Amino acid sequence: MGEIVVFSGSSHPGFASELCDILGTPVSPSHRVRFSNDCLQVQLQANCRQRDVYIVQPLVPPVQEHLVELLMMLDAARGASAAQVTAVIPHYAYARSDKKDAGRISIAARLVADLIATAGANRVLTMALHAPQVHGFFSIPVDHLTALTVLSLHFQGRDLSNTVVVSPDLGNAKAATQFARLLGCPVAAGSKQRLADDRVVIDAIVGDVEDRDVVILDDEIATGGSVVALLERLREHRVRRISLVCTHGLFTHDALARLSGQDDLTEIVTTDTVPLPPGPHPGELTVRSVAPLFADAISRIHLGESVSSMFAQVVPPA
Amino acid sequence: MGEIVVFSGSSHPGFASELCDILGTPVSPSHRVRFSNDCLQVQLQANCRQRDVYIVQPLVPPVQEHLVELLMMLDAARGASAAQVTAVIPHYAYARSDKKDAGRISIAARLVADLIATAGANRVLTMALHAPQVHGFFSIPVDHLTALTVLSLHFQGRDLSNTVVVSPDLGNAKAATQFARLLGCPVAAGSKQRLADDRVVIDAIVGDVEDRDVVILDDEIATGGSVVALLERLREHRVRRISLVCTHGLFTHDALARLSGQDDLTEIVTTDTVPLPPGPHPGELTVRSVAPLFADAISRIHLGESVSSMFAQVVPPA
Amino acid sequence: MGEIVVFSGSSHPGFASELCDILGTPVSPSHRVRFSNDCLQVQLQANCRQRDVYIVQPLVPPVQEHLVELLMMLDAARGASAAQVTAVIPHYAYARSDKKDAGRISIAARLVADLIATAGANRVLTMALHAPQVHGFFSIPVDHLTALTVLSLHFQGRDLSNTVVVSPDLGNAKAATQFARLLGCPVAAGSKQRLADDRVVIDAIVGDVEDRDVVILDDEIATGGSVVALLERLREHRVRRISLVCTHGLFTHDALARLSGQDDLTEIVTTDTVPLPPGPHPGELTVRSVAPLFADAISRIHLGESVSSMFAQVVPPA
Amino acid sequence: MGEIVVFSGSSHPGFASELCDILGTPVSPSHRVRFSNDCLQVQLQANCRQRDVYIVQPLVPPVQEHLVELLMMLDAARGASAAQVTAVIPHYAYARSDKKDAGRISIAARLVADLIATAGANRVLTMALHAPQVHGFFSIPVDHLTALTVLSLHFQGRDLSNTVVVSPDLGNAKAATQFARLLGCPVAAGSKQRLADDRVVIDAIVGDVEDRDVVILDDEIATGGSVVALLERLREHRVRRISLVCTHGLFTHDALARLSGQDDLTEIVTTDTVPLPPGPHPGELTVRSVAPLFADAISRIHLGESVSSMFAQVVPPA
Amino acid sequence: MGEIVVFSGSSHPGFASELCDILGTPVSPSHRVRFSNDCLQVQLQANCRQRDVYIVQPLVPPVQEHLVELLMMLDAARGASAAQVTAVIPHYAYARSDKKDAGRISIAARLVADLIATAGANRVLTMALHAPQVHGFFSIPVDHLTALTVLSLHFQGRDLSNTVVVSPDLGNAKAATQFARLLGCPVAAGSKQRLADDRVVIDAIVGDVEDRDVVILDDEIATGGSVVALLERLREHRVRRISLVCTHGLFTHDALARLSGQDDLTEIVTTDTVPLPPGPHPGELTVRSVAPLFADAISRIHLGESVSSMFAQVVPPA
Amino acid sequence: MGEIVVFSGSSHPGFASELCDILGTPVSPSHRVRFSNDCLQVQLQANCRQRDVYIVQPLVPPVQEHLVELLMMLDAARGASAAQVTAVIPHYAYARSDKKDAGRISIAARLVADLIATAGANRVLTMALHAPQVHGFFSIPVDHLTALTVLSLHFQGRDLSNTVVVSPDLGNAKAATQFARLLGCPVAAGSKQRLADDRVVIDAIVGDVEDRDVVILDDEIATGGSVVALLERLREHRVRRISLVCTHGLFTHDALARLSGQDDLTEIVTTDTVPLPPGPHPGELTVRSVAPLFADAISRIHLGESVSSMFAQVVPPA
Repeated sequence: MGEIVVFSGSSHPGFASELCDILGTPVSPSHRVRFSNDCLQVQLQANCRQRDVYIVQPLVPPVQEHLVELLMMLDAARGASAAQVTAVIPHYAYARSDKKDAGRISIAARLVADLIATAGANRVLTMALHAPQVHGFFSIPVDHLTALTVLSLHFQGRDLSNTVVVSPDLGNAKAATQFARLLGCPVAAGSKQRLADDRVVIDAIVGDVEDRDVVILDDEIATGGSVVALLERLREHRVRRISLVCTHGLFTHDALARLSGQDDLTEIVTTDTVPLPPGPHPGELTVRSVAPLFADAISRIHLGESVSSMFAQVVPPA
Repeated sequence: MGEIVVFSGSSHPGFASELCDILGTPVSPSHRVRFSNDCLQVQLQANCRQRDVYIVQPLVPPVQEHLVELLMMLDAARGASAAQVTAVIPHYAYARSDKKDAGRISIAARLVADLIATAGANRVLTMALHAPQVHGFFSIPVDHLTALTVLSLHFQGRDLSNTVVVSPDLGNAKAATQFARLLGCPVAAGSKQRLADDRVVIDAIVGDVEDRDVVILDDEIATGGSVVALLERLREHRVRRISLVCTHGLFTHDALARLSGQDDLTEIVTTDTVPLPPGPHPGELTVRSVAPLFADAISRIHLGESVSSMFAQVVPPA
Repeated sequence: MGEIVVFSGSSHPGFASELCDILGTPVSPSHRVRFSNDCLQVQLQANCRQRDVYIVQPLVPPVQEHLVELLMMLDAARGASAAQVTAVIPHYAYARSDKKDAGRISIAARLVADLIATAGANRVLTMALHAPQVHGFFSIPVDHLTALTVLSLHFQGRDLSNTVVVSPDLGNAKAATQFARLLGCPVAAGSKQRLADDRVVIDAIVGDVEDRDVVILDDEIATGGSVVALLERLREHRVRRISLVCTHGLFTHDALARLSGQDDLTEIVTTDTVPLPPGPHPGELTVRSVAPLFADAISRIHLGESVSSMFAQVVPPA
Repeated sequence: MGEIVVFSGSSHPGFASELCDILGTPVSPSHRVRFSNDCLQVQLQANCRQRDVYIVQPLVPPVQEHLVELLMMLDAARGASAAQVTAVIPHYAYARSDKKDAGRISIAARLVADLIATAGANRVLTMALHAPQVHGFFSIPVDHLTALTVLSLHFQGRDLSNTVVVSPDLGNAKAATQFARLLGCPVAAGSKQRLADDRVVIDAIVGDVEDRDVVILDDEIATGGSVVALLERLREHRVRRISLVCTHGLFTHDALARLSGQDDLTEIVTTDTVPLPPGPHPGELTVRSVAPLFADAISRIHLGESVSSMFAQVVPPA
Repeated sequence: MGEIVVFSGSSHPGFASELCDILGTPVSPSHRVRFSNDCLQVQLQANCRQRDVYIVQPLVPPVQEHLVELLMMLDAARGASAAQVTAVIPHYAYARSDKKDAGRISIAARLVADLIATAGANRVLTMALHAPQVHGFFSIPVDHLTALTVLSLHFQGRDLSNTVVVSPDLGNAKAATQFARLLGCPVAAGSKQRLADDRVVIDAIVGDVEDRDVVILDDEIATGGSVVALLERLREHRVRRISLVCTHGLFTHDALARLSGQDDLTEIVTTDTVPLPPGPHPGELTVRSVAPLFADAISRIHLGESVSSMFAQVVPPA
Repeated sequence: MGEIVVFSGSSHPGFASELCDILGTPVSPSHRVRFSNDCLQVQLQANCRQRDVYIVQPLVPPVQEHLVELLMMLDAARGASAAQVTAVIPHYAYARSDKKDAGRISIAARLVADLIATAGANRVLTMALHAPQVHGFFSIPVDHLTALTVLSLHFQGRDLSNTVVVSPDLGNAKAATQFARLLGCPVAAGSKQRLADDRVVIDAIVGDVEDRDVVILDDEIATGGSVVALLERLREHRVRRISLVCTHGLFTHDALARLSGQDDLTEIVTTDTVPLPPGPHPGELTVRSVAPLFADAISRIHLGESVSSMFAQVVPPA
């Protein structure tokens, strides 16, 4: 298989650049046109023939624009006779639509997985899918990275003897359980009830959080509504210092301002799978880069080395 | 096959209503949610099981939003065990990306056709594809309607003895040739060169337009840039009264104002495959509905009658 | 679509009979041969042509035998020109292999879903998949029933004011959360760590169970090892009366004896998705039939009525 | 990918030889048998395993024989474990059946594209498809060459200031427009109406040809009927010297004799994508080989170099 | 499913007529065009929408022409929204290419089966495949008829106590064994060695034929070369009266004359799956129609009755 | 393509070891778990990424267990990004279910071929399929080895002038014919009638065996029932010394004891495609290894050399 060629869609060019800097390869140029009828066209401007091609595009807002752009770039690379086309999707936003919790809806995480395969991807490289089962929605091989190790480094050297990891949602607490094991802490969870997309009630806290330091772990934070609801409930239990940790920090609709306005929330830790909203960022915010993980994975994929061994110690048997 | 169920996406609910009024069936309710991370979800709120389901969604701006919404609705209908799912796409905007006129681009009209089949459509009902070959991009049956008969009715009873039909693009003049035959007029064409999506040069007019009334026919008008360029060239030939006719009248970026400002352009005739831009419309504008054609086609599809016989007299052998 | 024809594989003929009694249709005969080289052959002995065919086969031990038998029956029905072939799999045992929690394993729940589609199933009717995401592993429509309503009837009229529903696994507590809402109780969960398939440690109980009546809810109970481990941990919290509830009561390796030997376990409630192990059953055991639910679903599928409306009130938004 | 192996079907062995001479590789032997029941069998007589295999077969009369032979050779190469199988189809005759211009016909250009993919081709290398959209009928990558540059060399150094390029069909004038730009000439077109396959009427000439030298450009010439009809119409406009240029010179049914009998037709220029009919050829005929273009493309495909860059200057934006 | 519509390809219109007479339905018109470049086009000239469509076309010489014509008609019917498309192929000539008996050949019987499915057939109705395994080459349902019962009626009432059924090929003697059981006779076989398609050696006769009446049974007779070689060998064993029986009587290359010139060959019995060669036929020839069998099968397919029960008594367990 | 990695399923580890010894490569470790609900999981414990992976698993009893295990290992290798996955199936037991000899059964040899492709195999390497047509059931390339040469070596140097090769089944005598040619002997066959899987009647012997030495050739021997029935019939013809030769020696249900108890059966020759039953083996038994053939084929596949040339002299034209 020929040399690596990396293209970036328009959703997060900074991440692609950082990735390519580590790989020692340039981001190959591409040119995007929006026709006057709003249809898109993307031209890949470097030879793909028999190359090992990577298209970098997290699915961040505007999600539909970025999804269609990704599909076109995949199709263009296939049509240009790439040896192998990998969709690098640091944040697969549609992973949250992973089940049929109402009649006559699409399981969009599966639909989008099928669209990506139809468009010509031979492989997907992604991180922190909302539920680990989403991996199985893809008919093509997926390399699924985790940010938990990188995020746990933030707490290295800190006394965590009185700390508890809290998942906002009891129904989806696997990652919190894993993170708690990495930190050597117990785990608790909110009993969350979603009334609507933007209205969430946390009935209760399941598990002991009284008088403890709390590390809230979520995979994605958008408006932060669930977190604010959780904080209210946690305060009733007189928790102490609260840290908020997430892989995908979208922070839409002024979420950063709203969260930094919570006095007992002392720090917000996230990664760079998605671009930060523009403007000044609160001092509580720490961003830890996962570009080195993606660069390492791409390098291993290209050289035929094991990717799963990167995380051998992270994911204990469930 | 059970009864007809029609759902409308969010791109042109008025057209779906008109269609359903003619069919004597209500538009079935659906509910669209935009999650805070910008992902969409659509719930079809009527039973689809063993029904003959139609999803109405022309691909108008924002095209990517409407495309993904359409794909989700198709997938939801399939997952809800519809007997047959028909994508009703009065305007298939991506038809213009029908060839590989540059290296390493996607032939998006084919890609989108594949996405629609992947999402679960069993059939497509559409109108006035940019080139008739686009029909062949679909692996599923397509019923391809033409608006030429409806548009030609506008000229009924008018003296057309000194009229010529002009196609803006010599390279794509098949529909203009057909329209000219319907009107009993000769045909001419602009020799168009596209410098960029929004920069078009009309080198010359091929064919005799001198001192004639002119009917410009195009499939789609977006900004109207090509038309304005064509008008300039036509004026050099001292043409008389100019009519502009198109199936898909998008009129983006104040196109209607720009066109109605052209003094010698005396009328603009279009259909309702796409919603008109909001606001007051110039007096030159006439909209002829093709909803009766779509309703007739749906009725024939449902009852197992021939659709091609609707246009037996329109499309002469090419 | 023609009349209903129901065949039963060899894994649970009693359930098929019960189903067919309710439907008022006989179980159609089939004949299974095991060749001397151990290959199987199944002949469907009733006309399938243009019929609406259902093959009933939960995946119970010997699972591989029953899976291959199911695939053969699906293929035979397709080859015999059935109008529609539905795999009725009351217990989809492979649903537990739903993620890649180790490198280089198959996500078997997805693989088996693909095998079932390859063999010719047009639809799957199943119950209580281990995780709701498994629904999305199928490329064909799935009607996914829940036993929670039927199981909750067992507790009707009982004073549950001091009761808590406990999930053995914090990482997979969605169903327990739903069951708790049906009963109007709070929820708790074990923090489970799987050392090997048959060695499970419950680190801790997350949530308040002290001095309470406990209803343990699990989707499937095989050896009962997890339950015994959970009971030990619960006893440290001085819980009172303990009920064990599960949809799929496999009770392999003398599980019933082991469980009924636990003095504080006062009742075991399950359904008939899988056959009970032979022999005398302990008095603590109550089996509630879900055959009426399956019969209702089949009837709705056949008549084109909504299946999701059967459970409109059960599954609240997650 | 291993070495190049080229096989020739029986339709144009001379072209395959010329191609292989340029590539410096022999045509690998194959053996064709026609069974007494008229079924064909082709044995590829060189090792294909992990080789980069090319099957050369333009679809010339008898087209159906050559098509089925091609499909068999593709299937044989796939079954023999070729690393990559490329169908080299210098003339894809079915490209003319590119739209549904009558009810209940096959869009054969799409059907045949699907058959070629079903038979095992991984890629197609072809030239001068009747319409550029036909490219999109293939689900596999297509490298689509143009002969326009080679054909334009014929006119190099000639005074073309009074020359016009004429397309026989206004509805399909894209290539003529491109050729006119290469020569620096204006363009005109016949307004063609097809009454039947072999009965064509040219209503009128659209564009100014009066007193000009004319270069007629068509993609394919079979019986030459359209050309003769066009000549009659052109003569009414007192055109001067007429040149006839086409990529695919089939010249069936004594077309060469008929055309050379037209006194004002001073030259016929074509390429070698198809074999010339046997017998003496008129002095007006010039054949320019495109074998070097195909050899260059095969070499680039094999070495992973860009094919689109071969024509960067030829195809201006449409 | 709507009414039956039957179209006939050009290979055997007489059989289609006979079939339709029995069914009481007309042969629907279709129109075949051969373009001047030798490409075919077929228009189905009756409405197919939601109809149950049958295309009748045995694969007789010119086989490739008839195969491609069949594929186009299937594709046209699918594109015209037929409810179900059945390819009725009374003689599937490619069935003889059923194994890979040389390196790097296509197993054409499988390839052609895949082409037929790609072109849009939902089902195949055929007769007397060369080997019963060829059934399994199709991914779509096949109804596979046998002519053995019809052919055996020819011998009804005759004294067969001294008769032996002889298969020309020991390696493919299953049908002869079945026919012998129907007649109540023993079986023998030639040990055939194929040197080339048209050169066959019968080494020996395996089984006792001395002084017996002989019934030679073959599935297809083309040039009759194998039969002549077999007759020579049989004569060495002093056989008496010889009857020749075959399902598919192609009789190419004057086979009928050659066979009727064999004095000891007293009768030739065949069916009408393929058209007889033109001209006067020898008195030894008897043709028994299988059109009633095909009409019965089509009627059962349409009405959803069992086809396999038509032959319940014919095909004993192998 | 990277280095060779060979894994063994649990059905015949000894064969995989022998194969790997010849290849000079270790058998890579894998770990099989049986969950308490009887579901399997297999982890491949060596890096597969971009490797050329071989999974060795003959389908011997328990066949269904071994089949599902094989499918999982194929899927795991694909999901682990192997460059190419080859299923090495020395005995493809389901090949015997190769036709539809009763209504409404699955042609399981085709179904299982499709399952193997669905699970991710890119190629199959197998030996002595029951009928050569089974090759065509696979949509992926198959390398089909024969053991006839190896088995014929057993008779080298022996006087075979009075020997006849006997096939138990006249309907499937191709391999016996080939073996007879290798030995230079005539051939005979039993006229077999299968009453049920385990009840076979040999009506008669077709061909001359009187006073001859006999070599019985079958592809697979399971219980040996057919052989015992054949022996009885042969004895009526006063045959002399009898040898029994088969490729796949399953010898289930004490077959070896039963066969060695037949006094006139002087030797049993088989290969190691399947494991021998445990326990002491009779002196008549000779096992000839085909592991060198498989190792040679794997080596050729890996290096891109021809596999068919291994047997150029073995399989004469049929």
